[in-house]
Amino acid sequence: MPVITLTTDFGTGSPYVAAMKAKLLAGCPDAVLVDVTHTVPPFAILSGAFLLWAGTRDFPPGCVHLAVVDPGVGGVRRAVALQLNGSWYVGPDNGIFGQVLEELGRPGLAVELRRPPDASATFEGRDVFAPAAAALAAGTPASELGTELEGEPVRLPRREPSVLWVDTFGNLITALKPPVSGVRVNGQDVRVGAPTYSQAPWNTPFFYVGSLGYIEVGVREARADQRLGAGPGTPVEPL
Amino acid sequence: MPVITLTTDFGTGSPYVAAMKAKLLAGCPDAVLVDVTHTVPPFAILSGAFLLWAGTRDFPPGCVHLAVVDPGVGGVRRAVALQLNGSWYVGPDNGIFGQVLEELGRPGLAVELRRPPDASATFEGRDVFAPAAAALAAGTPASELGTELEGEPVRLPRREPSVLWVDTFGNLITALKPPVSGVRVNGQDVRVGAPTYSQAPWNTPFFYVGSLGYIEVGVREARADQRLGAGPGTPVEPL
Amino acid sequence: MPVITLTTDFGTGSPYVAAMKAKLLAGCPDAVLVDVTHTVPPFAILSGAFLLWAGTRDFPPGCVHLAVVDPGVGGVRRAVALQLNGSWYVGPDNGIFGQVLEELGRPGLAVELRRPPDASATFEGRDVFAPAAAALAAGTPASELGTELEGEPVRLPRREPSVLWVDTFGNLITALKPPVSGVRVNGQDVRVGAPTYSQAPWNTPFFYVGSLGYIEVGVREARADQRLGAGPGTPVEPL
Repeated sequence: MPVITLTTDFGTGSPYVAAMKAKLLAGCPDAVLVDVTHTVPPFAILSGAFLLWAGTRDFPPGCVHLAVVDPGVGGVRRAVALQLNGSWYVGPDNGIFGQVLEELGRPGLAVELRRPPDASATFEGRDVFAPAAAALAAGTPASELGTELEGEPVRLPRREPSVLWVDTFGNLITALKPPVSGVRVNGQDVRVGAPTYSQAPWNTPFFYVGSLGYIEVGVREARADQRLGAGPGTPVEPL
Repeated sequence: MPVITLTTDFGTGSPYVAAMKAKLLAGCPDAVLVDVTHTVPPFAILSGAFLLWAGTRDFPPGCVHLAVVDPGVGGVRRAVALQLNGSWYVGPDNGIFGQVLEELGRPGLAVELRRPPDASATFEGRDVFAPAAAALAAGTPASELGTELEGEPVRLPRREPSVLWVDTFGNLITALKPPVSGVRVNGQDVRVGAPTYSQAPWNTPFFYVGSLGYIEVGVREARADQRLGAGPGTPVEPL
Repeated sequence: MPVITLTTDFGTGSPYVAAMKAKLLAGCPDAVLVDVTHTVPPFAILSGAFLLWAGTRDFPPGCVHLAVVDPGVGGVRRAVALQLNGSWYVGPDNGIFGQVLEELGRPGLAVELRRPPDASATFEGRDVFAPAAAALAAGTPASELGTELEGEPVRLPRREPSVLWVDTFGNLITALKPPVSGVRVNGQDVRVGAPTYSQAPWNTPFFYVGSLGYIEVGVREARADQRLGAGPGTPVEPL
């Protein structure tokens, strides 16, 4: 059964998520729907790009990943479907696929989606992206949904390494990759390393290779973000 | 595969939602379950009625929509299943179906559900409504689940037009329908109109026809609710 | 279709939940996934044990219940699969299954799960528990996933009766079972009993037998937790 995942900034409990699922199931009745997250901060394309990648990277080829963080809805930004690693990524061409593109390289196929004439100008997630995602999941060739994308999809801006995300436990997921011998965060040097939380000293920030393959900074059973005064966007440096 | 949606005020992460899903899957193993929302404010029938309608209106006929916002659980209010537009709405007869009734008209069939003698007096969502919803999704005739409803189902109270809901982005969904040439909200006249956010001026409240067919008021990439001091229930007037 | 439920402390909207679901669907493509909760307070094994039991008790035999509240991830605590009442419970052996064990008795089968050599040291939910849960749901014999558990699984500590959980409405779910003629909570005696909220007096704490079979304390359409200054862990005594 085809898997379709959803990543949005609609908020927990928004009826707009169900509205998109109505269209997904109408177009692909046997789809398995998996929520990645609906709590991307409003309009936060950079955060959304990270969460989309983090929540979809473990799915096998053959899935459809729908992402709607879309402050430019109804305007001139393009609507796209990008094929990467055998799966389709569907949403606005505003950078939301930037982290996936950084990790997975150039898309195999890239289509600019046609906009149905009766689509709402404020909710293309329901009227453009969900129908396209459902069609792709149901096996419709992408060429029937639009035309080949001209040029490149929008990528993330070049930027200094920073904290990409803070998880529920307060751990900092940084943009650094191993190997490092430490991390400087917010002017503080973290030089203690440990393989996992339960092997780290108590009450001490430490770094480790996280489950996403990036360097993370944590404090055992406590919040590294509060301890270090850091959050998404805080600059980091390798030591 | 039959679709069953869920709308409750149980809160994010409540194990009571899973308890209802256990009964839904026991009674209809091939059902596809879709959460509309579980963050209706506690006991807020008017908000729940709006969210139920907003989250289910895009589903095709043949679905079952379960709604449990039920301060009168275990008491004298009736348990009902209402057939509207070819789908079933199942829950307490306390007004939770009021917005759906306003939009879709009188039910085709209406049944007062039988209460199993061993049902919990505090959780009929699990013991009355979920089993009935599952049975309807599995094709059981409604007549086997109870008796024809006497009189009319409870409707929403007559009320002045107001803000029905504030979405995650701070946009105001009002009870007004187009055409209008503006909206008065909380004593402030909003006369700027735009087709969508990305075509609106910055930093200025504007009105538009939202994706639900109602007039909405927004501020481009900012929060109209804070800007205008408005929230659910704030009166609105067409200009 | 096999049902797999998920109970974690990953937080609402965490991409790590989707990562586990990717592995669940890879190992058991026709599984029906049901979220119990992802808002167990971080590292709170006692709360998690309650929510796991409350959210899974209504499922029939033959399900797989995955629970990941796991401060000791990557360390010496064991990874287990316990068969209770015909369903499998999969997760860390740290007490998270304590409430289920108290309610359902000793496991029929108990297996210490093998750890794949390439498993992340910080996310065994994705790399150890989800693959094992999927395999069990797909019919793999437990003996292929590890070895018979030595000794007993970890149980909850012995403790005085207390408030186990506060629901979204502010009702106190206590560890007391009926019959009682009242409950002392935080030094206050609650002697008024009622079968359900809508039959209770207004503005008065009352006790009732809740839908989980425990004694609960509520205030009609108001918050008993605030009224009585009580929360999870507040001691209670039967009267």
